[in-house]
Amino acid sequence: MKDIAAAAIAVHQKHQGKLEVVSKVSIENADDLSLVYTPGVGAVSREVAADVTKARELTLNGRTVAIISDGSAVLGLGAIGPQAALPVMEGKALLIKHFSGLDSFPLVIDARDSSEIIKFVRQVAPTFSAINLEDISAPRCFEIEESLQDLGIPVFHDDQHGTAIVVAAALLNAAKVIDKPYSSLKVGIIGAGAAGLAVAKMLLGANCRASECSFVDNLPRVADLVVFDSKGALVRGRSDMNVYKQAVAGISNKEALSGAPTSVLSGFDVVVGVSGPGTITPEMIAVMADKPVVFAMANPDPEIMPDLAREAGAYVVATGRSDFPNQINNVLAFPAIFKIAHTLQLRRISMEVKIAVVEALASLVEEPTQDEIIVSPFYPDLVGVLTQKVITKLSS
Amino acid sequence: MKDIAAAAIAVHQKHQGKLEVVSKVSIENADDLSLVYTPGVGAVSREVAADVTKARELTLNGRTVAIISDGSAVLGLGAIGPQAALPVMEGKALLIKHFSGLDSFPLVIDARDSSEIIKFVRQVAPTFSAINLEDISAPRCFEIEESLQDLGIPVFHDDQHGTAIVVAAALLNAAKVIDKPYSSLKVGIIGAGAAGLAVAKMLLGANCRASECSFVDNLPRVADLVVFDSKGALVRGRSDMNVYKQAVAGISNKEALSGAPTSVLSGFDVVVGVSGPGTITPEMIAVMADKPVVFAMANPDPEIMPDLAREAGAYVVATGRSDFPNQINNVLAFPAIFKIAHTLQLRRISMEVKIAVVEALASLVEEPTQDEIIVSPFYPDLVGVLTQKVITKLSS
Repeated sequence: MKDIAAAAIAVHQKHQGKLEVVSKVSIENADDLSLVYTPGVGAVSREVAADVTKARELTLNGRTVAIISDGSAVLGLGAIGPQAALPVMEGKALLIKHFSGLDSFPLVIDARDSSEIIKFVRQVAPTFSAINLEDISAPRCFEIEESLQDLGIPVFHDDQHGTAIVVAAALLNAAKVIDKPYSSLKVGIIGAGAAGLAVAKMLLGANCRASECSFVDNLPRVADLVVFDSKGALVRGRSDMNVYKQAVAGISNKEALSGAPTSVLSGFDVVVGVSGPGTITPEMIAVMADKPVVFAMANPDPEIMPDLAREAGAYVVATGRSDFPNQINNVLAFPAIFKIAHTLQLRRISMEVKIAVVEALASLVEEPTQDEIIVSPFYPDLVGVLTQKVITKLSS
Repeated sequence: MKDIAAAAIAVHQKHQGKLEVVSKVSIENADDLSLVYTPGVGAVSREVAADVTKARELTLNGRTVAIISDGSAVLGLGAIGPQAALPVMEGKALLIKHFSGLDSFPLVIDARDSSEIIKFVRQVAPTFSAINLEDISAPRCFEIEESLQDLGIPVFHDDQHGTAIVVAAALLNAAKVIDKPYSSLKVGIIGAGAAGLAVAKMLLGANCRASECSFVDNLPRVADLVVFDSKGALVRGRSDMNVYKQAVAGISNKEALSGAPTSVLSGFDVVVGVSGPGTITPEMIAVMADKPVVFAMANPDPEIMPDLAREAGAYVVATGRSDFPNQINNVLAFPAIFKIAHTLQLRRISMEVKIAVVEALASLVEEPTQDEIIVSPFYPDLVGVLTQKVITKLSS
């Protein structure tokens, strides 16, 4: 890890970051200038003024995704501020470009409360075709993303939905490996932040707005699920939960279990860590059902190291890291999500689209094994294949 | 013009705009991914979190200029809105990249009043090394730019200062052509918007904040100057002027002339149009002093066409257009301004820097003539040459 850190800093220093803005047109003489700038550009502006939808075909507005963060919940590093979040956001923009071909630009912002961030996104929206919210702390991220769904362009909080999509896809395949029906699984989720609550909703096939949740018909759905925060299981009637936790408590934990994971997880099939190092222990795995599935997703340090999880009896182990088998990383989803939204000109990313991506992504592993429940980000033309599969599914 | 319009629309359609965001690094395998994204990027974020100034060397923050507009005063087209302003802003970003080598990205925003725009710029500032405000209507643009001078990075409103710099440089040389000392010139300015008031302050060598103006010592300065809005000359005591016009009236129009340009300009040496087509007439030029200088800057249609100005007696004629001699265009200044600010790590663009650019730009024409008072934007390495000259001047 030390070597990676030093090498990462060196590559960032060498290029002064990672993204460059370049021209798609030639500017060699006054004639060129008269087309891309005055007076020619006036005609282009007039076209868009007469019909604002023309911005899509005549400007970068039609093909550019904003990556917006306030730097309040960056990786496992916490509220490190906008400038310190920029390397992550520049990376995210880079991955969108590399994997989907869409352009993308990072905006790290100095904004305090939800209403400020919501207003900022509304103000800047005319520049972009879609908005990716990133590394904004819970529970603010829920309110912010929900409020912006009427914007007319997709607003996608990757920490929630990107994570939920890749976890669900990996879990569909893990269920095959342990030979249990997905719909029979009992799942524990360690962590009740953006990712934890979103994974819970996805695995339960539920749509929520603040405290209102509803199950969506005909979706794949696990048998039961319990989410844990630092105080124990989310359970109806617990008095110290925000509305987003209350909403998930209302649709999960059928047996109203309470307490710490080590006791509650007894007999559970799956545990998903979206928390931090040390929050999944060998003792938890020991009480789980036959062939435990352990997803330890924290980056860069997982909730439990894979070798330790296996020693404790885990049958399928996945992490977010590229140096172990079964890397469950959001990069498997978000470039495809934006490509699909762009191709279909979606105004929002519905649960139907997310589930279609889950199923398409899972289907790429033909015969899942302990060491291969999910494909690599370098699967040939991953985004193109997913986009095609999802469009076929949605139009069937 | 019709051909240019059609060709401009075609080139924008072909490329879906003009700018592309590309990667400076390779992403071919999991090792690459671990450096530019998780886990390696975590080390880069930690570096910046520990010392926020490191963002300059480790991210695009150190080399990227934002072009921000609310679309309230676009070219001669008026308040056409953010999307319709985007072709212009994309062009501006392109020119910065092409001429200065700095990266640049356009942000068109849906914001109503000055306080909203000021707040937006403060919020987004952590992403960028400098801010170019563009096509924001007067008088809001004055308040917005003034309020943001404490931001810690340069905030430059090109419609004001870019225009003022190129007009002043061209006028220094025009004075040589008509063989009159610059300091003897009497100048009329048609138009009291962003450009008109900024040109007035520059030619008078004055710094203003709202209603407070002061002359800066040892600057080149014309003898007198009168600014006109649609109601006539700005003159002390006129009751219908905003504070910014009042401020300029307080330092100009020594003889307290009032009324329309056709009478007031009698005996004046120079008239500068920063208004719109038809606002400079042959009758005005006819009453001016010997060898009248006419700068008709409106784009794309100048205040008076060059042939008509010459027929009326103009001796030196300049426009903003590339299809006539003497093109006075902001592109001669703003890429150099940002390059200089970047090279010297300036926190704001002072009057001293602006004047240094004026003098450096004027000096590039060794022997000014009627048809060459200013160089072309394609002068070899224009930005490099200006940057070198300005740095030499400032350090002398």
